[in-house]
Amino acid sequence: MKLRLGMIGGGPGAFIGAVHRIAARIDDDYQLVCGAFSSDAAKSKAMGATLGLEETRTYGSYEELIAHELQLPEQQRAQVISIVTPNHLHFQPAKLALKNGFHVILDKPATFSLEEALALKAVMQASGKQLCLTHTYTGYPMVKEARRLVATGAIGKVRKIYVQYAQGWLSQLEEGTGNKQAAWRTDPSKSGIAGAMGDIGTHAFNLAEYVSGCSLSHLCADINTVVAGRQLDDDGAVLLKFEGGASGVLVATQIATGAENNIQVSIYGEKGGLEWQQNNANSLTVRWPDKPAETWRTGGSYTSSVATHNTRTPAGHPEGYLEAFANLYHNFALTIRAALANQTASAEALDYPGIEEGIRGMAFIEHVITSGKSDIKWTPFIID
Amino acid sequence: MKLRLGMIGGGPGAFIGAVHRIAARIDDDYQLVCGAFSSDAAKSKAMGATLGLEETRTYGSYEELIAHELQLPEQQRAQVISIVTPNHLHFQPAKLALKNGFHVILDKPATFSLEEALALKAVMQASGKQLCLTHTYTGYPMVKEARRLVATGAIGKVRKIYVQYAQGWLSQLEEGTGNKQAAWRTDPSKSGIAGAMGDIGTHAFNLAEYVSGCSLSHLCADINTVVAGRQLDDDGAVLLKFEGGASGVLVATQIATGAENNIQVSIYGEKGGLEWQQNNANSLTVRWPDKPAETWRTGGSYTSSVATHNTRTPAGHPEGYLEAFANLYHNFALTIRAALANQTASAEALDYPGIEEGIRGMAFIEHVITSGKSDIKWTPFIID
Amino acid sequence: MKLRLGMIGGGPGAFIGAVHRIAARIDDDYQLVCGAFSSDAAKSKAMGATLGLEETRTYGSYEELIAHELQLPEQQRAQVISIVTPNHLHFQPAKLALKNGFHVILDKPATFSLEEALALKAVMQASGKQLCLTHTYTGYPMVKEARRLVATGAIGKVRKIYVQYAQGWLSQLEEGTGNKQAAWRTDPSKSGIAGAMGDIGTHAFNLAEYVSGCSLSHLCADINTVVAGRQLDDDGAVLLKFEGGASGVLVATQIATGAENNIQVSIYGEKGGLEWQQNNANSLTVRWPDKPAETWRTGGSYTSSVATHNTRTPAGHPEGYLEAFANLYHNFALTIRAALANQTASAEALDYPGIEEGIRGMAFIEHVITSGKSDIKWTPFIID
Amino acid sequence: MKLRLGMIGGGPGAFIGAVHRIAARIDDDYQLVCGAFSSDAAKSKAMGATLGLEETRTYGSYEELIAHELQLPEQQRAQVISIVTPNHLHFQPAKLALKNGFHVILDKPATFSLEEALALKAVMQASGKQLCLTHTYTGYPMVKEARRLVATGAIGKVRKIYVQYAQGWLSQLEEGTGNKQAAWRTDPSKSGIAGAMGDIGTHAFNLAEYVSGCSLSHLCADINTVVAGRQLDDDGAVLLKFEGGASGVLVATQIATGAENNIQVSIYGEKGGLEWQQNNANSLTVRWPDKPAETWRTGGSYTSSVATHNTRTPAGHPEGYLEAFANLYHNFALTIRAALANQTASAEALDYPGIEEGIRGMAFIEHVITSGKSDIKWTPFIID
Repeated sequence: MKLRLGMIGGGPGAFIGAVHRIAARIDDDYQLVCGAFSSDAAKSKAMGATLGLEETRTYGSYEELIAHELQLPEQQRAQVISIVTPNHLHFQPAKLALKNGFHVILDKPATFSLEEALALKAVMQASGKQLCLTHTYTGYPMVKEARRLVATGAIGKVRKIYVQYAQGWLSQLEEGTGNKQAAWRTDPSKSGIAGAMGDIGTHAFNLAEYVSGCSLSHLCADINTVVAGRQLDDDGAVLLKFEGGASGVLVATQIATGAENNIQVSIYGEKGGLEWQQNNANSLTVRWPDKPAETWRTGGSYTSSVATHNTRTPAGHPEGYLEAFANLYHNFALTIRAALANQTASAEALDYPGIEEGIRGMAFIEHVITSGKSDIKWTPFIID
Repeated sequence: MKLRLGMIGGGPGAFIGAVHRIAARIDDDYQLVCGAFSSDAAKSKAMGATLGLEETRTYGSYEELIAHELQLPEQQRAQVISIVTPNHLHFQPAKLALKNGFHVILDKPATFSLEEALALKAVMQASGKQLCLTHTYTGYPMVKEARRLVATGAIGKVRKIYVQYAQGWLSQLEEGTGNKQAAWRTDPSKSGIAGAMGDIGTHAFNLAEYVSGCSLSHLCADINTVVAGRQLDDDGAVLLKFEGGASGVLVATQIATGAENNIQVSIYGEKGGLEWQQNNANSLTVRWPDKPAETWRTGGSYTSSVATHNTRTPAGHPEGYLEAFANLYHNFALTIRAALANQTASAEALDYPGIEEGIRGMAFIEHVITSGKSDIKWTPFIID
Repeated sequence: MKLRLGMIGGGPGAFIGAVHRIAARIDDDYQLVCGAFSSDAAKSKAMGATLGLEETRTYGSYEELIAHELQLPEQQRAQVISIVTPNHLHFQPAKLALKNGFHVILDKPATFSLEEALALKAVMQASGKQLCLTHTYTGYPMVKEARRLVATGAIGKVRKIYVQYAQGWLSQLEEGTGNKQAAWRTDPSKSGIAGAMGDIGTHAFNLAEYVSGCSLSHLCADINTVVAGRQLDDDGAVLLKFEGGASGVLVATQIATGAENNIQVSIYGEKGGLEWQQNNANSLTVRWPDKPAETWRTGGSYTSSVATHNTRTPAGHPEGYLEAFANLYHNFALTIRAALANQTASAEALDYPGIEEGIRGMAFIEHVITSGKSDIKWTPFIID
Repeated sequence: MKLRLGMIGGGPGAFIGAVHRIAARIDDDYQLVCGAFSSDAAKSKAMGATLGLEETRTYGSYEELIAHELQLPEQQRAQVISIVTPNHLHFQPAKLALKNGFHVILDKPATFSLEEALALKAVMQASGKQLCLTHTYTGYPMVKEARRLVATGAIGKVRKIYVQYAQGWLSQLEEGTGNKQAAWRTDPSKSGIAGAMGDIGTHAFNLAEYVSGCSLSHLCADINTVVAGRQLDDDGAVLLKFEGGASGVLVATQIATGAENNIQVSIYGEKGGLEWQQNNANSLTVRWPDKPAETWRTGGSYTSSVATHNTRTPAGHPEGYLEAFANLYHNFALTIRAALANQTASAEALDYPGIEEGIRGMAFIEHVITSGKSDIKWTPFIID
């Protein structure tokens, strides 16, 4: 049976809400049954109507959604709540949902602050419910294959981790032009203490740790607000040191004029190297010192179960961003269904980002902003 | 409201049926309400259960599906029937569906023979219902942008049209190994008179005519069965002449060992050229004699409405094969909804392949096989 | 010691003459000692002065060059003559040079007609001297590696051979604008019976046979003159059949507006496939059905001696067209030196195109033009 | 007339000496007339013989070369001396050559220390002779075109400068295996205080400043010796701040296993962006926020005089590393010839790296190593 899904946020004009809904549909694991799409009840109703929801299950606030859904028979009630609001509106609805027995899918970054993320973990643990954090890029089959190759020692002990996420869409003061996406992302009351570092730096950080299997230990950040009049950082670069000895560089910028969205990661170990980039997402380059580089491809007959589990079509039919996003939704659904059936979820099902990644992401934001303001070179990465 | 969708074919192990279902879900235009997934009633029931259908609406044959759905109240009855069976099972169900008031989505090639395709057109015209033929590759935004650039004269009068579709998956006698996909595609009783030319040659032919806006006038084909023991062609190359003076080459092969699915088209006109390939589907290269080549990108702010209408995410979030497929479903849904509302569908909505493309595809198959056997160089392309 | 080199043709404004001179210098095997650069003695003298030649060894005609050089002491006399004139001026100077004891480097196509090429072979055999035909593209290390992989059976029995050479520089009537390069190449009195097919079709044909190791047996050509007012073909496509069962397609066009010079070849065998293109000349893609594609790279530590012999720098330092050209000159020098030393030249040294390739190229021109005019599909490729 | 060239260093087994000699030959500006190829006189003689030099002009030391050449008539004497020895043997021969009236071509980095580089500048200025420093990558036509586009304001005020030079060839302890190249480059008595940062970091730094037109003002370096037993750094990453407000990142590593030599630079300004990488050296990507990205190509008809001056062949004939190197030699020759003729050299001719770039490179080495050891984040980049 499909899991019954509710959504908080994702009203008209929102980018990521629509993406979540497509992701939820692709593998047919969910049925959207309710939503609080906007704090403006009329807008929420209108969106619900567009989406074919019953009017009684389109709400004007997340509190109303939770309260009303709880009054429904368990067989009708939403089981999973997707929260796709700006960052300052993550913690309270997530907490309320978990406490009341809903599983939660949360857009990144997890919360408004590290403190909230730590609190959310405690709530979640007490609730016994699951949480999925949508770090999309770890949903790509070739990213997962890269992680597997590192984990199985194929490239040897990791030495270097380079990750880069360059965008150009904020290269002018978009927030002054009525661009809603730009407005909240550059507003510290909604985004938190970081702009680019929260919005895309956390993605890059998550990707680096996910693929390399290494944990950040120290960082040294150069954080800039390049566009005059902007309230938060729109650019940064960070030197990284990892537990176990690897080092690297993270670049996240939103003012690289003309750059699209080409997040990329390269990992070099003692025996070989791996390179992946989103604009060629179905290929993974594997480099060796003494034989030709290999191009692993989504759907390739030689790919591992971790890749094929996350692939829908044979090699050569490109899968993209929405499919990567759908992989998070699908694996989360498999995990919840296993729980509903009192079964242990498979390793493939459990391979989605959760609260731990959320906490590390929020810690990254706090440390990177601290480091950016510091005259001392290395800031240790410590989560109390 | 969602359109109610029924499916004929697409049982367990089918490749394209699953693709159709994903494509139908992505934009939330359809709800799958019934199916005859297999001629084995038990298998069909099992698939219906997997898909969450009511048992009473999972049928053991297409005749049963049509007959029973007609007995349902109009508000519950399927409105659109997707036919995703092997080629020999296209015509009869399509005809029955159309005659009984259902719109039809038909996998390519349209039918088993040109004669059937022509007959289907007559049926369709008499029915007043719509038909969409899933030539997937014309669903890509950059393919549509390419077509628009040609149509608006950007590259001048078309001179050359090169199209290539090389696969390697039939480079051994797969049909002897229990591979169901290979088995029916190489079986003349199910595929028709052509193998590779029907399966992928028609895609290449459709792509060439779609982008160039030119109509084939003559062809000269080299058609081969390379793998010993195979019953149908698995390889071919065709010299092409078009009305208006353009010429070109079509390559379709399934025995190019190691090749994936990288269908590609290049069009050169008097003023410029265009190149697109599926493995870099979100880019369109536009070449000029006297200025730098341009890379147009899915989601680019400069793309036309024909591209943006078929795009879900901003530039740099790759959209792939499933989204291209979904564009066919979405545009067909828009067209049907406009009809239901007694409105004229927009040009963007009407931009999907239909029975005319199906007839041309079947004519291509017949002519290309004829030409392959002929000692005369040029075979005129004539559809009576 | 350096070989003493003379040049016939290559005066001011010539493209290929300058390329030959650079190619001759790169590996320091030759010293240019004399030339008849133009039939205009003053222009020839001026060019000789520019090149630092002694005035007495700058001649106004090839006859004068041969005659005068013969009067010089053997230690000073040119040993090798490069002939870089338009096609109608290949045979007579080559014949005279060979007959008088000079080795010859000849730009392609070999001669003005097949008849001349056959005659030249006889002259050469009688002379005991060597001839190198500058089919540049076979000089690339990765092309040679591709040939080796085919020859050693790595990809199994060859099935498909696709070769394409698309240029756009003649997409307008350049010969009407004072463009010297365009003028002679489109003039049947200088080029011979073919335009594009002679100029670049022969390159494509040579590349296809060289890499595949297969010999053409039948062809079916579509030959066009696209630009109004042009005297020779500027476009063509050819279906190919080879001895041993392989088939393929050759495309050569000079009116693909915006296309550069990106000659490319793909070969598919029973076990794997190979793809190479000039605009990524240092990479060779090797495809397999059951493992990741490999990218072999010029200078890679794993490349064979046939590649490394033709490479000057470690992997990652791109080598280009001039180095490929230089490989022909270098290998020819090694061959001549071995002969001077009464030694057997190595297989690597002997790996340059010669009169046999020249004869096949001229036969290709004659057959392809014949086929282009024929209503019969297949023209057998026969050299009497 | 050709310039008479002498060489110091470049004996058997040397990599860069052979490259210099090819570069000197490509455009026929130089004639190698003498050399001190090795401090072992016999080896030097042997190399001289191989190169066809007169035995009397093959020397056993640079002092002997200078002393003996000075005794030759001016018409025979070397005019330009190329110094291609390890770093510790740059200053003394360069100084002696300049003081005695020879122009100097010097491999990078300029000297063993910043102090030497500053001293060399004084020597050079006093001598009235010219010096060319072979930062190869600035010789590529598309790198020059990039610089021009930035300088003319095409991309607006520069904001971000990313430069990366990743190699893998020192990913093991090559210096322990008899690899001569590895041995001296990792030996502080020969290389100086830096390994990777001197060998390739200086290239990356030079490329960044050359293309961007910006001058480094502060840096923050993470410098590592990754391979156990190595004496110098083999890896590093540096945060950069430039005069005028741009910032960026420099990566230089020699332990990225499997990486070739793919130096790359990306520059983003207020209006657009530029991306270039050596493994696609003939293309320059120019990005815009509101129109398709452009691919500028070596030899393109639309390229500027600064590019065409440094290009030998039409678009689509790839030029590579050796041609880029040759551009330095050629421009230096033009500059010297202009001086010999008491003329002003053209801007194109003067576009080669010289002592200023050498000083900045040595200062980069000293600052980057200092910063690497410092706990303070930002080290100002100051050259006294």
